[in-house]
Amino acid sequence: MIRAADPHHDGSPLYVSDPTPTPGSVVSVRVRVPHEARVTGVHVRTTPDGEQFFTDARVVATDAVETWWQADLTCHNPVTNYRFLLDSVGDAEGEAEHPDRPPAYRWLNGTGVHLRDVPDAADFRVVTYPAPPAWARGAVVYQVFPDRFARDATVEPAGDVGGPRTDLPDWAAPARWDEGVDIDRDSGPVQVCGGTLDGVRERLDHLVDLGVTVLYLTPVFPGRSNHRYDATTFDRVDPLLGGDEALVRLQEAAHERGLKVMGDITTNHTGDQHDWFRAAQADPDGPAGDRYVRDPDRPGEWVSWLGVKTLPKLDHRDPGLREALTGGPGSVIERWLGPGHGFDGWRVDVANMTGRYRDVDLAHDVARDTRAAVDRATGGEGLLVAEHTHDHSADALGDGWHGVMNYSGFTRPAWTWLRAPGFAPKFLGSPLRVPRLGADLVAETMREFSALVPWRSLAHSMTLVGSHDTTRVRTLVGGDLGQVVVAAAMLLTMPGIPMITYGDEVGMQGDFGEDGRRQMPWADRGRPGGAWDEDLLETYRSLVRLRRGSPALSEGGMRWLHADDDAMVFLREHPDQTVLVHVARAAHGGVEVPAHAIPGSAAGRSLHGTGLCVDETGARAHADGPGLDVWSWTTAAPDWDPVPADHRGGW
Amino acid sequence: MIRAADPHHDGSPLYVSDPTPTPGSVVSVRVRVPHEARVTGVHVRTTPDGEQFFTDARVVATDAVETWWQADLTCHNPVTNYRFLLDSVGDAEGEAEHPDRPPAYRWLNGTGVHLRDVPDAADFRVVTYPAPPAWARGAVVYQVFPDRFARDATVEPAGDVGGPRTDLPDWAAPARWDEGVDIDRDSGPVQVCGGTLDGVRERLDHLVDLGVTVLYLTPVFPGRSNHRYDATTFDRVDPLLGGDEALVRLQEAAHERGLKVMGDITTNHTGDQHDWFRAAQADPDGPAGDRYVRDPDRPGEWVSWLGVKTLPKLDHRDPGLREALTGGPGSVIERWLGPGHGFDGWRVDVANMTGRYRDVDLAHDVARDTRAAVDRATGGEGLLVAEHTHDHSADALGDGWHGVMNYSGFTRPAWTWLRAPGFAPKFLGSPLRVPRLGADLVAETMREFSALVPWRSLAHSMTLVGSHDTTRVRTLVGGDLGQVVVAAAMLLTMPGIPMITYGDEVGMQGDFGEDGRRQMPWADRGRPGGAWDEDLLETYRSLVRLRRGSPALSEGGMRWLHADDDAMVFLREHPDQTVLVHVARAAHGGVEVPAHAIPGSAAGRSLHGTGLCVDETGARAHADGPGLDVWSWTTAAPDWDPVPADHRGGW
Repeated sequence: MIRAADPHHDGSPLYVSDPTPTPGSVVSVRVRVPHEARVTGVHVRTTPDGEQFFTDARVVATDAVETWWQADLTCHNPVTNYRFLLDSVGDAEGEAEHPDRPPAYRWLNGTGVHLRDVPDAADFRVVTYPAPPAWARGAVVYQVFPDRFARDATVEPAGDVGGPRTDLPDWAAPARWDEGVDIDRDSGPVQVCGGTLDGVRERLDHLVDLGVTVLYLTPVFPGRSNHRYDATTFDRVDPLLGGDEALVRLQEAAHERGLKVMGDITTNHTGDQHDWFRAAQADPDGPAGDRYVRDPDRPGEWVSWLGVKTLPKLDHRDPGLREALTGGPGSVIERWLGPGHGFDGWRVDVANMTGRYRDVDLAHDVARDTRAAVDRATGGEGLLVAEHTHDHSADALGDGWHGVMNYSGFTRPAWTWLRAPGFAPKFLGSPLRVPRLGADLVAETMREFSALVPWRSLAHSMTLVGSHDTTRVRTLVGGDLGQVVVAAAMLLTMPGIPMITYGDEVGMQGDFGEDGRRQMPWADRGRPGGAWDEDLLETYRSLVRLRRGSPALSEGGMRWLHADDDAMVFLREHPDQTVLVHVARAAHGGVEVPAHAIPGSAAGRSLHGTGLCVDETGARAHADGPGLDVWSWTTAAPDWDPVPADHRGGW
Repeated sequence: MIRAADPHHDGSPLYVSDPTPTPGSVVSVRVRVPHEARVTGVHVRTTPDGEQFFTDARVVATDAVETWWQADLTCHNPVTNYRFLLDSVGDAEGEAEHPDRPPAYRWLNGTGVHLRDVPDAADFRVVTYPAPPAWARGAVVYQVFPDRFARDATVEPAGDVGGPRTDLPDWAAPARWDEGVDIDRDSGPVQVCGGTLDGVRERLDHLVDLGVTVLYLTPVFPGRSNHRYDATTFDRVDPLLGGDEALVRLQEAAHERGLKVMGDITTNHTGDQHDWFRAAQADPDGPAGDRYVRDPDRPGEWVSWLGVKTLPKLDHRDPGLREALTGGPGSVIERWLGPGHGFDGWRVDVANMTGRYRDVDLAHDVARDTRAAVDRATGGEGLLVAEHTHDHSADALGDGWHGVMNYSGFTRPAWTWLRAPGFAPKFLGSPLRVPRLGADLVAETMREFSALVPWRSLAHSMTLVGSHDTTRVRTLVGGDLGQVVVAAAMLLTMPGIPMITYGDEVGMQGDFGEDGRRQMPWADRGRPGGAWDEDLLETYRSLVRLRRGSPALSEGGMRWLHADDDAMVFLREHPDQTVLVHVARAAHGGVEVPAHAIPGSAAGRSLHGTGLCVDETGARAHADGPGLDVWSWTTAAPDWDPVPADHRGGW
């Protein structure tokens, strides 16, 4: 339950002294406690080496509305999980509860304040794994599906905006640029519209104009489909996209503009026409056959992704595979990375299944090896994000992947608030349609999933309101552009690395993944009533600008203040700035936030919208319809109290 | 929130077709759905190889009050986690919610029914690890602290019931049997009252009379304390206790009476006078020094348990240690086990820390190796239970330990209901006193912690209301014998393996662990007003008998129906029997349970108490004071529906 007067902590810089601690170092953590919560003592519980251990917190600042408590934790293990025990009675020996007092025993963890004992799953966590690259903080990602984003001048001669390409391989079905996408299960994946990497390069100004900082390209290695998640090699870029040289040109051009570029790699499987699999088939009983998971029930055959025979599953027990993927500068992971004309990181496809089959689970080993390879190739400047479509808590501690595609903690709950009453897609394989929920349940879901991973993993996970694999956000909300703005507002005011799927910013539609992989409607620019909505684009621009200009929105914590029906109100707190965010999906009757939950806000100013009135008595949010309001002020926080010389936070 | 009309599933035999499935086999699972819950469809979600997968359930039986749904799961991985997705709308395409309908999208997992998406932590789980021994089902354990349970006839000559022993080593401080225990931090642990294993043997009739099935002895290896958790060798039984021969005599006598006997082993550390540690000290830089965790900050020294220098921590990276502990028939774990005069299992001390230090975490490896050794030595007939004092979910999947000492899922929440208003101990290191809560919070805590582990692990974890490490239950409840009965009622009607600490059954007291390790007051038997309460003992006897005679109480599931303030009502369901349990810690105004939540109950009968009235309209529970009521009837469940030939529950 969201309560504005609850004490608060999260893993962001306002609350944790060192976001990238080294093993054995001491990190200070603190809690903001409104007097309203009537707390007389704060203790921190950790579990070094698997044993419960309590440390006392001390008061480091107090004013008319709140008290700051600080404690110090030794990072004894790679992951230090901790939560706070709140006292309301004090030290009176054996004193029983008094009816006028709040309970003497409350826990504060990542899901809020609890009156009873809780498991460790929602504990806060600091980790000592090497830090992600600095450029990922405040990043905004733009996802491009190369076949559908833009042709280049060679492919698309002047005057011909739509003709089919004639230089395609046998498996491909050529399509015009202005032709509807083929959504047939069999013929859809081979429809080739002819976008290229040079086409992307020629449109980089669109990304710069939008304000994004990272270009993420779905796979560029050759496959036998338009999506290329069925790679036939990892040794070269698909000539259909322009080949290796076009990728170099694109990366250099992007880097010149200050954009980072991320690639997409499938470590779970390859296409069945991949060099490696052909070698396996040529000598099934030999070592080449060990590179894929042999089917224990069918001798001479291999296991495949979800039973799709054209996607044989890689066997990460095979030393040859490990060597080929992550074994050094020439390996698949390393060779495509690096400054200049290399990728700045990888998004890893089907990471949740990678290395897992029956009683074998090498997922963490693969993740750590991949991370080591990325760190080596980029000098620690590469970002590694894993696809994961459900509960990723076991896989997102930060030893391997820096973060995940946050479908479970962001996309799915966001959809339950955003989807139109009359339109209910099924989310990634679920047999039931996405429910439409009030903001209370949505916020609780987001808070619970966020609490399952270290703050650093949350902050380096990609948030998205849709992708090449899902319903387009505009379709999700029933076509209404006002609701698309609500979605963009959530995306760009919440923690994580926002990922915008190409075309969402101009209002593209699509009922499901394949249907949403439409050609970017460049020809409709400036054409009223066409598929390119300039007003929506301007809104996206302004929201990206708002986020990038705000340390609180880019890097701040997440403190829910109110969530009910059609309204969400939350704080993003950063040492330099605090913002109060109000998102409404519809007109509502108004929300009040007490002054003690937003100290200092009366001295602030509006950054966006007119729906927030803030003064010494608190804030009132109102909405006449869907919208976003952001109010900003300078954070007043005490300095970090030095760690006492006799500190013993672990052993 | 506990709601009697919620659909229900748990991992017990009524709901899961095969409690010990083999890898790759198919297990059927089913849900009982009261019509009141208005469910139109049931789907099962699993995550084989880390990917979400949904299977449809089918109706296998329906009557006037409820419907049984069944689905089939392939045990593709060693752990198959699953939960149920409940539909209330049906297949109407795109149909929006109707105001008269319940939500179309609800999850059922181990913590109940949820209106929003939930993480996997509370998923149900079936595991394919080898089964625990059959004798553990329905077992009731009696914990004995050898120095304090009973002297034998040699040590305690006729006419002298209390004199100090004169045959003690230098470290020991002899005490009379009728002397108060020394609770001083330093001198307490060396006070020796002189109980022996022959003393235990001579009192086995007390255990048989009480009805317990397992004798669990805290350590019997020599140490330099009365608790012996500071072993000086694992090669022989302490001569103070009678030596190896006395253990053999005790085990044979216990086995003759049908009792199993469990030992206690510390795998985290030894005493600093242990043979191994003396060898390490003699040659600190040699291989003997590798058997303990070297202190990285203090060359030539070793790490110890919680910084207690006399308890150096074993380093499980050392192959020599692994060999000595679990390397074969002569190893510590194996040599003391076996039929006849061997132990029937081990309780593992400080299992939660074993193998864990800084960036090393071998806890699961140690657990699996220990389990393998136990299985080898006993032919799979040994039980292995780990001490764990907090959230044990990561360590209790069943690949290693069969179960844990369930402090977090049973003891601690039970204490929050049982403790006297005027007495509030601190639980195992917590800086705050145990709160006194209403049954709603207690039941939610129990349900949440229970949901974190496979049912099999829960069923093979020891439940306890106190131990040699805690406040005695009678002291906890403020001395009131009626409240001790409430505690015994919880202990003996809930899932798990109940463990009774010696003397609890006659009303022994103790403010905390050391204080509770009092001498068993044999001399007070039959002496009114003494430390031995015969009425309480009779109640314990009857409750043990009640449990052992009831398949539902011994092996049934756990279905909460009501929990509020002073009353708990729950079902234990088994294919042969269902019992309705009502526990009250005080008089209360009455509780009603609707008939649809307890089908068949009207044809039942009372097994205990008079506080339950059951007829066709449902059940009414009332209490004039603390007490227990149990109502029993024959379970009416459909047969398991055969698995369809085209079943595809995994891949």
